[in-house]
Amino acid sequence: MGAGEEKSAQAAIAPRAKDYAQWYLDVVRHAQLAEHSAVRGCMVIRPHGYAIWEKMQGELDDRFKATGHVNAYFPLFIPLKLLVQEEKHAAGFAKECAVVTHHRLKSVGGEVVVDPEAKLEEPLVVRPTSETIIWQQYKSWIQSYRDLPLLINQWANVCRWEMRTRLFLRTAEFLWQEGHTAHATEEEARHEARLILDVYTDFAERVMAMPVVRGVKSEGERFPGAVESLSIEAMMQDGKALQAGTSHYLGQTFARAADVKFLNRQGQLEHPYATSWGVSTRLVGALVMTHSDDEGLVCPPKLAPIQAVIVPIYKNDAEKARVAAEAGLVFERLKAQGVAAKLDDREEMQPGAKFYEWERKGVPLRIEVGPKDLEKGQLCLVRRFLKEALPGKEAESRAKRKSFLPRAQVLEGVPAILVQMQDDLLARARAAEALRTRAIETLADYERFFKEEGGGFAWVHWAGSAADEEAMAQRFETSIRCIPLADQTPEAFRGEGRCLFTGKPSRQRVLMAKAY
Amino acid sequence: MGAGEEKSAQAAIAPRAKDYAQWYLDVVRHAQLAEHSAVRGCMVIRPHGYAIWEKMQGELDDRFKATGHVNAYFPLFIPLKLLVQEEKHAAGFAKECAVVTHHRLKSVGGEVVVDPEAKLEEPLVVRPTSETIIWQQYKSWIQSYRDLPLLINQWANVCRWEMRTRLFLRTAEFLWQEGHTAHATEEEARHEARLILDVYTDFAERVMAMPVVRGVKSEGERFPGAVESLSIEAMMQDGKALQAGTSHYLGQTFARAADVKFLNRQGQLEHPYATSWGVSTRLVGALVMTHSDDEGLVCPPKLAPIQAVIVPIYKNDAEKARVAAEAGLVFERLKAQGVAAKLDDREEMQPGAKFYEWERKGVPLRIEVGPKDLEKGQLCLVRRFLKEALPGKEAESRAKRKSFLPRAQVLEGVPAILVQMQDDLLARARAAEALRTRAIETLADYERFFKEEGGGFAWVHWAGSAADEEAMAQRFETSIRCIPLADQTPEAFRGEGRCLFTGKPSRQRVLMAKAY
Repeated sequence: MGAGEEKSAQAAIAPRAKDYAQWYLDVVRHAQLAEHSAVRGCMVIRPHGYAIWEKMQGELDDRFKATGHVNAYFPLFIPLKLLVQEEKHAAGFAKECAVVTHHRLKSVGGEVVVDPEAKLEEPLVVRPTSETIIWQQYKSWIQSYRDLPLLINQWANVCRWEMRTRLFLRTAEFLWQEGHTAHATEEEARHEARLILDVYTDFAERVMAMPVVRGVKSEGERFPGAVESLSIEAMMQDGKALQAGTSHYLGQTFARAADVKFLNRQGQLEHPYATSWGVSTRLVGALVMTHSDDEGLVCPPKLAPIQAVIVPIYKNDAEKARVAAEAGLVFERLKAQGVAAKLDDREEMQPGAKFYEWERKGVPLRIEVGPKDLEKGQLCLVRRFLKEALPGKEAESRAKRKSFLPRAQVLEGVPAILVQMQDDLLARARAAEALRTRAIETLADYERFFKEEGGGFAWVHWAGSAADEEAMAQRFETSIRCIPLADQTPEAFRGEGRCLFTGKPSRQRVLMAKAY
Repeated sequence: MGAGEEKSAQAAIAPRAKDYAQWYLDVVRHAQLAEHSAVRGCMVIRPHGYAIWEKMQGELDDRFKATGHVNAYFPLFIPLKLLVQEEKHAAGFAKECAVVTHHRLKSVGGEVVVDPEAKLEEPLVVRPTSETIIWQQYKSWIQSYRDLPLLINQWANVCRWEMRTRLFLRTAEFLWQEGHTAHATEEEARHEARLILDVYTDFAERVMAMPVVRGVKSEGERFPGAVESLSIEAMMQDGKALQAGTSHYLGQTFARAADVKFLNRQGQLEHPYATSWGVSTRLVGALVMTHSDDEGLVCPPKLAPIQAVIVPIYKNDAEKARVAAEAGLVFERLKAQGVAAKLDDREEMQPGAKFYEWERKGVPLRIEVGPKDLEKGQLCLVRRFLKEALPGKEAESRAKRKSFLPRAQVLEGVPAILVQMQDDLLARARAAEALRTRAIETLADYERFFKEEGGGFAWVHWAGSAADEEAMAQRFETSIRCIPLADQTPEAFRGEGRCLFTGKPSRQRVLMAKAY
């Protein structure tokens, strides 16, 4: 990737503190994660970005299968009639969609045009989500309680015609997984929706090293057609919340719309109870905004396509031969221990340019092998980040990231170091989140927090109406991200109080923030 | 899956010898691989079918990565202008397509319709293949020879508006992988196209246990825009050929159309050389038609989602307790050895119904655990197929498929048995193919072969024109499947001869057959 590399390296990454939005786009570009395409609103996920998504898929898929789910594939197109079958769902999704109206092109005077005679009798909508088409199919799969539960997931592309797009965070087409389950009882379906929220939480925290708050969505933020929507909310480095995954208890809504019934244990016909849940390539954007710095992407070891890069350093052919042998040995030893290692022995590139490239791409560990290291029986290990270097302070830790260790310690110790770095990154993200998290009791404090102090997660007592929520949104650009589950509320934030907006009694705090 | 199972079990599988087309659909349905959807021409891939596809994906993806390829993702939509940029490509693909013309729906008097005001300025075509959109992107990725080779693969859904569809074999939407590579020299690109053909061959034969013939496509069958198309051709049980994978050397066609140039080692600007290659969910159909029998799916161990099913057999609670303990132990031992084992301890189902279900779903091995086996220290092992039972003769081998083996032999021996079965299946398919493969010298023999003897693979000398090819197609419904690569031609079929149609001298035989 020589020339392309060098070229993109010329324009530096905008400092996060100065222009957060530009910083995000620059990190995405410099790490070669994604870029815009020739199609309005659609992105191209570049190999390095896709490799991270593949790792996310693998970790999630393992967890889905371990909890009894299987994968399947349903059609990309949804007949319009089907999409609008369920009223609330239609109101939510039958809006900005890609609509297929014709099935043929033809050549007219040397120009290719849409053949007006090939108009479809019924328009097809490119799926924005698949509840309707999947429940149509479930009709023939579910007859008895013995056919339940049906625990199916789909990995697919979906399309929502967004007006304002941003790479990974909001694009016309994106990749995701959508689970669609059917159960014999409400209790079982509600349990499934919570179980998946736990799976998402585990993935976010242990794999992405991204702390999340789990909770219930307010009515206004509920999935169209759902009885209850649950979500995990993560804090980005600008203090805004990003909804990182949702899990919905759908009740009998879609079963009723598709007329799916089963014979229950009591011998009566009943509509099954449903859930649906999903996470998307948006998580790659969340990953960038949780950990990265002004030097580029920071990637947790569990998601890093390359976990350790080995760079040989030499000045002449004699040095090169000795250094290359050692570098090759280090590479083989790491690989044998299951480390995703890369030996960067490109000849036309200076070590400094290599360091710069792999830093921008978020490789957690760099091992430099030079002639002096050989003499001293040591290796130079450079960490991409340190636990104690909180956002904005990373550059100060630059010197501390580098250490010279006895050779044997590196050859055997890298797997343990990567495990430690994974934990460190979560701890750092938790510390950063804590710095911008407050219990707030009054509107004046709330205003100061969001308008003067940069904002973050505000835990506030709330007993307002939907109109009050709207008023808060108008005034502060904030919303209720979720009503945290009881066990998600820190000890200090528990207990009753009074709504900061209406003064009415409130049983528990909600999480308010600006949001992506 | 109780009720659904029992219901679908009622209609038996049509005998392959009597009604091959119906037999195929019945096997697909009984094995719960796929079914039609509410959308014309689009299929639903059911969990069991999707699990097989996932295993295919895993095996292929490993091979792509081992040969230096990486994955990426490009947009689903192709602007019409881009699709028709390259003339021959446009002639081939700008035909039956799904065309997106609008981006919004609206509610009019309670009914949801396509919003006429939301018409796209330029229609978008749902990708039938992605050369055009990908090469558009490569323009900014390729500047110098140092950016090459670019070795990228995409796993995606594509859409071709087929009029007559058949599950897996021909559907409006299907899943596939498409590789798109760029190289600095013609030689390197041609080598890549061959390398991938080898990868496909290795996968087809070692994983799918499906023998293939590798060769070059005739001009009429070439990919629109390609300089040379290569394919692997497999014989189905009705003697027809199925094109199981293609790899194209595209020359500079798409680079030129997208105006992609790079600075070569000589310091000159040049268009890069390209390949593209793909296999699709069609392979699941090929798998069914290569190995299955009148009892249902036959699946090679390497692709079987369940490789061994353990069925406990008992008549009373005392027997049940003893048998269950042993069955659980067998299950754990197999799992510990990496076997994809399933313990089928469903209580509401008779053993016979279980046998029937797993046979139809193609599970390679069944282990029955009964009280008598416990007493005798043995286990009952039932193979799904035998090497010597050629198509049409499988039922005769039924008794021989069952064997009682000493307990220890089963507990430790299953992995080796599965390896043996994998080889057996390939050997059986080779033997079946050999039975229907002939060198044919005269039109009279050709006519007899295809019209009286059931047909198959005819290796014939050919020196005819495209018109002659068409005449053969009219008369026999056969076509040149490929011009086999030199090393693909069996010793006996080598050497020069005379074209069976024109009598002109011919340097080598081509493979002719009816085709899917």
